[in-house]
This record gives sequence, C-alpha cells and structure tokens, in this order.
Amino acid sequence: MTLESGSITIGVIGGGQLARMMVPPAIHLGLRISVLAEAEGSSAARAADAVGDYRDPETVYAFSDTVDVVTFDHEHVPGEILRELERRGVALHPRPDALQYAQDKILMREKLGELGVPVPAWAAVEDEGELQAFIDAHGGRAVVKTARGGYDGKGVRVVSNAVEVRDWFTALAEDGRGGRLLVEELVDFTRELSQLVARRPGGETRTWPVVETIQRDGVCTEVLAPAPVQRHETLDEAARIGSAVAEGVGVTGVLAVEMFETRDGRVLVNELAMRPHNSGHFSIEGSVTSQFEQHLRAVADLPLGDTSMTAPAAVMVNVLGGPADGPMPVRYAEAFAAHPRAKIHSYDKQPRPGRKVGHVTVTGESLDAALAEARAAAAAFA
Amino acid sequence: MTLESGSITIGVIGGGQLARMMVPPAIHLGLRISVLAEAEGSSAARAADAVGDYRDPETVYAFSDTVDVVTFDHEHVPGEILRELERRGVALHPRPDALQYAQDKILMREKLGELGVPVPAWAAVEDEGELQAFIDAHGGRAVVKTARGGYDGKGVRVVSNAVEVRDWFTALAEDGRGGRLLVEELVDFTRELSQLVARRPGGETRTWPVVETIQRDGVCTEVLAPAPVQRHETLDEAARIGSAVAEGVGVTGVLAVEMFETRDGRVLVNELAMRPHNSGHFSIEGSVTSQFEQHLRAVADLPLGDTSMTAPAAVMVNVLGGPADGPMPVRYAEAFAAHPRAKIHSYDKQPRPGRKVGHVTVTGESLDAALAEARAAAAAFA
Repeated sequence: MTLESGSITIGVIGGGQLARMMVPPAIHLGLRISVLAEAEGSSAARAADAVGDYRDPETVYAFSDTVDVVTFDHEHVPGEILRELERRGVALHPRPDALQYAQDKILMREKLGELGVPVPAWAAVEDEGELQAFIDAHGGRAVVKTARGGYDGKGVRVVSNAVEVRDWFTALAEDGRGGRLLVEELVDFTRELSQLVARRPGGETRTWPVVETIQRDGVCTEVLAPAPVQRHETLDEAARIGSAVAEGVGVTGVLAVEMFETRDGRVLVNELAMRPHNSGHFSIEGSVTSQFEQHLRAVADLPLGDTSMTAPAAVMVNVLGGPADGPMPVRYAEAFAAHPRAKIHSYDKQPRPGRKVGHVTVTGESLDAALAEARAAAAAFA
Repeated sequence: MTLESGSITIGVIGGGQLARMMVPPAIHLGLRISVLAEAEGSSAARAADAVGDYRDPETVYAFSDTVDVVTFDHEHVPGEILRELERRGVALHPRPDALQYAQDKILMREKLGELGVPVPAWAAVEDEGELQAFIDAHGGRAVVKTARGGYDGKGVRVVSNAVEVRDWFTALAEDGRGGRLLVEELVDFTRELSQLVARRPGGETRTWPVVETIQRDGVCTEVLAPAPVQRHETLDEAARIGSAVAEGVGVTGVLAVEMFETRDGRVLVNELAMRPHNSGHFSIEGSVTSQFEQHLRAVADLPLGDTSMTAPAAVMVNVLGGPADGPMPVRYAEAFAAHPRAKIHSYDKQPRPGRKVGHVTVTGESLDAALAEARAAAAAFA
C-alpha cells in the first residue's frame, strides 16, 4: 500500500518504549504501525504484530515483507541485514549509509571530522599500548568506549590505565573480526545539550529548541526545554551543529545530537542517536509536533510539522528503577492526587534498579517551577 | 487484576472513534485497554481484542469476564444486559442507573425536571392527537425525537403536523413494547453550548471550560474552546448546570451536557451524552488533561487531572465525508505542507457523505485565528 491509496504501514524493529510512544501519534494520524518486538510482553506490546530476533536475517526479512517502510526503536540491527533489505528494495529510514554512524562510534568520529564538526580529541586504538599513549598525552585520564553496542552509559569507562579495559580488548580479539576501541579526551564540560532534528528523504528539515540534558552515571535523568540561555552564541552553535550533522550524514527520521558545552565556551559533539531520543520526550506535550509524530511523518515521507513549543518551558524527568512493589500504576492514586498537572508516562515495564520505566513531563511558564513539579511527581514512583 | 497490583484492563464496548481515541492515553499511562468492536476493521481496530454484537448478552458477558472495568463508546447497549452485568458484580462506568438518562430521552427529561434543571417545554406523546395538541399549543411547530437510538440528527424531526412522524408511531406500535415519542418546543436559540464534566465513583468532579458548538443539519461541525464570552452569567449558568446534572444523575466517567443559549438569555439543556463527546475533542491538544485520559482515570477510579487549557484558544473542526478518492491520508501531502500547526486526526474510516471521518484541532492565541486555520486544514479533506 502507499499513502496515495490512503494507507501506509510503518514497521518498527524493536519493541521498547520508543516504539511504544510512536503508537499514539500513529493512531491519531491514522497511519498503521507494526512492531517487531524482541519478546512477548515488550513495552510496545499493543502494536507488536511480530515477535522475533532482530539479529536473525529471515525474521527481519519476513517482517519487512508485511510493511511499507521500516524504521527502528534502536540501532542494533546488524548492518549486513540492513544492506540486504536495501538490496531487496525495502524502504529503510534511516538508510544504512546514515545509520552506520549511530551504530559505530569510530565511523561517527571519522565522519564528524570530515564534516568539520567540533568533537573531543579522539583516537581509535588497537591495543593497550596505543591506548596508554593516548591517555598519557591527554592528562592521564580518558574516556574509552566500545565502538558498537553501548547505550545509557554501558560500553563507556573513564580510565587512567589501559589495563582497565583489558577485558574489552580480549573480547574484541575473540570476536574474530578484530576491531578497535574509541578513546576520547575527558572533556571539561559545564553542561550537556541536545539538538533534535527531523529530516525527510528529500531533505526537508525541522529542529526543536536546543535542550539541556542532565545525566547521572551516564543515564539521562532530566531534560530542560528550551535550554536555559547562558550565552546565545553557544545555543546558536549547537543548533548549527545539529543541522549540519543531519544534512551531512543524510539521516531520515529523527536524529539526536548530544553535545558538551565546555568551560571555555565551545560545543563538542558527544553522541548521535538516529531515532526518537530521551532528550525529546518533552515534545509529546511541550511541542506542537512531538518527536514521535515527526518521526512517523519523516519516515512516511510526509511534510514535517511545526516544532514550536506549546508553553514557555517544558521539563522531563525520567522515572528510573520504579516503585519497589510493582509497575508505576501501583502509585497512581497518590501521584495523580498530588500532581494533577503532571503528564505521567509508564512504559509498562517491571521495576528494576536504574531501569527507565517511565517519565514525567510538566509544562509551564518557567523552567524552575516546571522542574520542581516534575521532580516531585517522578519522586512519587521512587 | 487491580491497580494496586500494577495493572488494570479497561474494557470498552463499541469500536468507534471514541474508543479509538482512548487508546493513546491508555498507552501513555500504561493502563491496558480492550475493545469489543462491532466488526473487523472498526475505527478502534488496534485495540479491538474482541469482535461481536453488543446486543447479544453472551457476547457482552464473555467480554466483560476478560476485563476489570467496563465502559462505553456509545449508549446503545441494552439496559437488560447492563443490569445483568451489574448483578454479576462487573464494574460498570457509567452505571446503568446513570446511563439510562442518556439512553432514553424521555427519562432524561423527567430526571432533569426533578433536578430543577431548565429544559425546553416538552411532552411524551402516545399518538398523533397528543402530538398535534402540543404542536398547536407551541406556535404550530415542534421538535419530535425518538426516545431511544438517535444520534447526530438521526431520530430528530422538526414538524408542523403530527402526520409527519406517523412512521415512528407505527414502528413503536409494531415494536410490541409500545412507547412514546418526545416532543419539545422549538427553542429560539442564539447558539449552542456544551459543558464537559468528568466524575469519579466517589464524587470527585472536574469540568473543562464551557465551549460553543456549531451544528449543521444536526451534526456538530465546529467547537470553540472556550466559548466566546457574550454574558459572563450565561457561561456561569451553563457550568453550574453541567455540574448539577453530573451530580444529579450520578455519572461516572465523562458527561457532555449540550445546551441552548436562548435569545432571552436563558440556558436550556438539550441533550446528554455519557462518554467522551465530540464537543471535547479539542481537549486532546487544548487541555492539560484530555477528555479521553480523564475518562480512563474516572472509570479506573483514579484522581482526575487538571483541565486547564494549554493555550488561550482551541478550535476543533470536524472532517465530514472525507476526500472523494479515499481515506484522509490520500490528502496528507498537501494538507501537512499547507498546515504545519494543525493537529490532524483520522479515524481510519472510509469516506461517505456526511460521515465523521476525522477532525482537526488548532490551538493559539485567539479563537478567530485558530478557527480560520482549522477550517482551512479541514477543507483540505473535502
């Protein structure tokens, strides 16, 4: 089917909360959505028409045959499978040529270098000797990252001695395909920023306001939209970088560009995500068009929506871990009564220490007031 | 299951657009929703776990066994079935004792009279003679309504001679159970208003701002939220009536009270609907808590959310009929490009003259600007 015939089915590989949150705008717009989930009972279960392993080629090919366009809840589908899908004529968004930069952090660093986008000092290292040389040359400490597979602080270590990632080198060697680790200078940053961008296949682009993101132990905990203005030039530079990256890598769908603002006023790109992103959850209530609706529009090659904010301020606070005694709804009676303005989102996940099980967004006239209310509402689920 | 255990499943009888629009907030809140739809391919298909006839007792009883609480997309489930469900201990919202006033317009008129709520002059008539006497006593024209089963202008006729509804009297006589028609004075109204109210089982109540509704041929076409102020006392009176009716009939869930504002400044109740209502669709984007989320909260007996508006003005325009050449998405390329701020909702229905196939909402600083934009966006689907 095609849009011209009045219907299009968007296939999403991965059944986590990002796929889950694509379902409401799909319902409102009357676009069909179908999810290939990892397991029964996944977060996006309501739309999970298929359950299977995204690393199994035949599973992915069979799922792709049932939909008009394929997009993703995560970046972990193997590149070989994606290339074969493309060869078979399946419409993929983002395309493998773009997605590779979110799948492999070394490729990403190389590409950003080509694009002239400012990044931390970095190197791809093959052994402990090369790594130690980089550490010694950059003040005795550095950040080491696996090129592939990391998320939410996993696959990231701050080290002062190369021996601290010996297990990673060993695993790479055992993998047979070899491979390198990424090492980066430890950036002296004052805060982290994120620029969300949506881009259609033909190049139409929309950006949301630059937001400030607050991390704890490598996991996003709070997002302030828009980012408080300290220097206008810094936010302008962050916005410029976000758009340059979107265009430069040729993304289709939503892209999040995570950045450091350094003590000396520079903006350096930290990570890329080519899908709706935690730093954009505020947009469900805080923007005229949410990142989830926009992602659907972009991958269906439809004109993008307005990204203006619906209020002067929107703050999102993650619910990490969740109540000790069950999923978030066990606390709804108290939380709803105390926080009637808070927009509470549950991903229908069992609680587990540190796990993202939901989030709370509050919109209002000021970031301070919205932050206080969102924190209080999120705390009701501790 | 119960909320205390972290999960509750809300069952909705009826698979139309109202059930459909309950699904997005259910996903966000992590409340399970299950729909008993009339047919495959219904508007709420994504959540339609069961398909069957709501007039068949065994179908309804079997569906009710699979959910924790039962609510409705429409008011057409026979009262005998509802009474039996209640006898079996099924949690119903609204309860049959309340719902009867939305199912039977004569009962409704009697109840509103008891409550002292202002209504048009009316009578329940058994034959043409009684009807003609009412018509003659009220200026030679009157509105005749079937007590049951009408909606969107169906079951309503303006007549000057009793013979014009002879077919209805005949049908009532053939029905075997007999029955009467409702006749009402033709009210000289300047506009129509609607008050949405949500009420929990324990009595907690929240109201949205009074809205102005614009009808054409008995079908709602546009809603202005909040209603433009002509006389403050009129809107205060409309709000007072809405709350009095909610309390008086003991509704649980969302109630819409449709009213006439008369040329001489009175407010008279026209109709009641005990479910989310077309006059509240604006609240999806226009209110902190939409009528659909609020209905779920109320029927799950959870504290109600804030009903403040998210902008000074919100206007909803229905898409009636739809494009001649297919469902609404056939026009998305043009409509999205021309109206990036419009929130477009498709009910995934095939176009048919006069059929409600979707709606458009625009929020903004002024009703005039929002109305112009919403009308233009809706017109893209003509």
